[in-house]
Amino acid sequence: MQQQQFDQLTTAEKREVERQLHIYMDGAEEVIPPEELRAKLAKSILTGEPLKIKLGLDPSAPDVHLGHTVVLNKLRQFQENGHIVQLLIGDFTGKIGDPTGKSAARKQLTDEEVRSNAETYFQQFGKVLDQNKVELHYNSKWLKRLTLEDVIELAGKITVARLMERDDFEERIALQKPISLHEFFYPLMQGYDSVVLDSDIELGGTDQHFNVLMGRHFQEKYGKEKQVVILMPLLEGLDGVEKMSKSKNNYIGIDEDPHEMFGKTMSLPDSLMKKYIHLATDLEAEDKKRLVKDLETGAVHPRDAKMLLGKTIVTMYHGSKAAEAAEQQFKQVFQQNSAPDNITAVHWQGEETVPVTDLLVTLGLLPSKSEARRMIQNGGVKINGVKAEAIHADIAPEHDMIIQVGKRKFVKLQMPQ
Amino acid sequence: MQQQQFDQLTTAEKREVERQLHIYMDGAEEVIPPEELRAKLAKSILTGEPLKIKLGLDPSAPDVHLGHTVVLNKLRQFQENGHIVQLLIGDFTGKIGDPTGKSAARKQLTDEEVRSNAETYFQQFGKVLDQNKVELHYNSKWLKRLTLEDVIELAGKITVARLMERDDFEERIALQKPISLHEFFYPLMQGYDSVVLDSDIELGGTDQHFNVLMGRHFQEKYGKEKQVVILMPLLEGLDGVEKMSKSKNNYIGIDEDPHEMFGKTMSLPDSLMKKYIHLATDLEAEDKKRLVKDLETGAVHPRDAKMLLGKTIVTMYHGSKAAEAAEQQFKQVFQQNSAPDNITAVHWQGEETVPVTDLLVTLGLLPSKSEARRMIQNGGVKINGVKAEAIHADIAPEHDMIIQVGKRKFVKLQMPQ
Repeated sequence: MQQQQFDQLTTAEKREVERQLHIYMDGAEEVIPPEELRAKLAKSILTGEPLKIKLGLDPSAPDVHLGHTVVLNKLRQFQENGHIVQLLIGDFTGKIGDPTGKSAARKQLTDEEVRSNAETYFQQFGKVLDQNKVELHYNSKWLKRLTLEDVIELAGKITVARLMERDDFEERIALQKPISLHEFFYPLMQGYDSVVLDSDIELGGTDQHFNVLMGRHFQEKYGKEKQVVILMPLLEGLDGVEKMSKSKNNYIGIDEDPHEMFGKTMSLPDSLMKKYIHLATDLEAEDKKRLVKDLETGAVHPRDAKMLLGKTIVTMYHGSKAAEAAEQQFKQVFQQNSAPDNITAVHWQGEETVPVTDLLVTLGLLPSKSEARRMIQNGGVKINGVKAEAIHADIAPEHDMIIQVGKRKFVKLQMPQ
Repeated sequence: MQQQQFDQLTTAEKREVERQLHIYMDGAEEVIPPEELRAKLAKSILTGEPLKIKLGLDPSAPDVHLGHTVVLNKLRQFQENGHIVQLLIGDFTGKIGDPTGKSAARKQLTDEEVRSNAETYFQQFGKVLDQNKVELHYNSKWLKRLTLEDVIELAGKITVARLMERDDFEERIALQKPISLHEFFYPLMQGYDSVVLDSDIELGGTDQHFNVLMGRHFQEKYGKEKQVVILMPLLEGLDGVEKMSKSKNNYIGIDEDPHEMFGKTMSLPDSLMKKYIHLATDLEAEDKKRLVKDLETGAVHPRDAKMLLGKTIVTMYHGSKAAEAAEQQFKQVFQQNSAPDNITAVHWQGEETVPVTDLLVTLGLLPSKSEARRMIQNGGVKINGVKAEAIHADIAPEHDMIIQVGKRKFVKLQMPQ
């Protein structure tokens, strides 16, 4: 049947399907399954109806960073080809809190908080998405109306064994840690949302694998066409190891100041460059490939590629003028040594890892730890151009590391050979 | 705290608590836990408030037999001491049917069918219970009002591991047979019913162990006093092996004709006598014990004890006059051989097991299998005084077995030595 739809297309239309398919597959970790995505694209072209692409969002206080933009950039590609984005605010879950009362963190949100958070999402997402092609949905609209009878009907469409396949459930069973029965409802609700929204496609990070597949499962059980699932890779943060997140303080926020954004990008480990080029920029697929190839062959120096990456990212969120300025400033301070008189080279002979406050005092940049703490709190300390944020954080001094206090005080570390 | 309540009682009141406790424990397979039952009795005497004893009932078409009366007799004991019976009709479950659509047997009942079945229960139970001390409840009243939010709250109060401990779930997991998630709701609903009804005690057969304990679990989770659970043994039917049930055709219905009831009782295997005396009669505890002891010491002949059992049971459901008559007729035909001319002794040399129809034809009691079938269908064939019901059933001929066709034709089998 899928093949049939495709066969009805003209040659030009078939080429268009393949063109779009190529774009959507690019950078995705998994598409389940690609042939259904092709069929949906064919149908959309035949009927003139845009596809509906769902993204589920937690209604807790949003602070959008580059990690989030991996899926947003993919959504943007769909919009560019005329399709519609369904942003699904999971406010029902947010409003019920944790029934076991165990997780104090999962506090109940009021209707107002939920709406206000959703608006913040909408606003911030506007930096990536075309807001005219976004539908905003709140799942409390249908979930709060479900009765026990509806819930039993829904629960009758899935087995306990299937639910226990979710990685974290499997792990807890193996460790004999309790799973409260209500936890089984979150995947059910996420699946049911897709039934209600008639979503064609649902996007998520690879950590959402199980939950996003629930939509396919329940749409089929309710006699509907199954959504295609596109799983995007998770983006590691500045530390190069952990998934980017606010709580890990390893993020680049899309609302951050251009200089900060550029500096943070320059501090990325080289090993992540390729991934950021693919997932965090809006470069054309061909340009991404060329840049990555040049990096691999050594045709471009990693520092120059990173500079281009930083400029591209800042342009996406602040425009090209701000990006130029950020690059300029960075070059002045860290590369061209345009203010060489201000930068003192200091030989470091201390520990391999020290608290930032200790480092500042040992280097004579500040007279006491308490002043060092205050300066960090006020945002006056930068390491390699990136603001030091956690006053208790440790740091591993490196050769050529530049420590800046206030506007003018700089030192450059020299390590023993 | 439990001890405290008991300590407030006078000596006479304490004695009354112990007297009732003794009655309720008698014949029960398990009381969970006895000390809470004692405390509840003490509280009831202190406050003058009767206890509420819950029995859950399936709303499918009822046909009450002695197997059901095991719990009814126990309920009656509570009523005799002033307590209140809560009959809980599980109509919510009956009305939703099977959401997987797999079990065609679980057809949905209409409101009318449910009410009519409930009335039939009420009427038939009236032969054992005092209808003035019975409350009739339908769980759809509260269950149909539950929303998804309520359900999640309820589900948050129990773990998946706890639910999987139920014997049949454990077994199916071991055999890798699927469990549909909605099946987890039945124990939840049964437990929630006790929360709503503030039941003090719930009765059930030992096969209800898991479900009945749910009431205790959820009452505690909702901050209420926990119900005590009384589990009664299951009564084997006429075959002496399987639990008495209509589908197994091994039952004595409480609406059956007195002669039939008496005859069926006489056909019980001797091995079940003790259990029937304890669970299916309303004899005083002391009388039960004496009769069982006399049986064990041989002071009473098993046939005479069975006669007394039959008379007691018929008296319970039809009165003493009908019981006398039933006994009289049985004696005439089977014991005193008062109509010896009518009973021909026939030597049986056929198979060890034969279809009843074949037996009737072989013995020359009826001319053809089709007439034998017709006679069985019309209720005209009795074996040892018990009506043969299933026309395709097999029978194992025994020495002295009496086969009766119509009012007057009798033969007595003689087996080869």
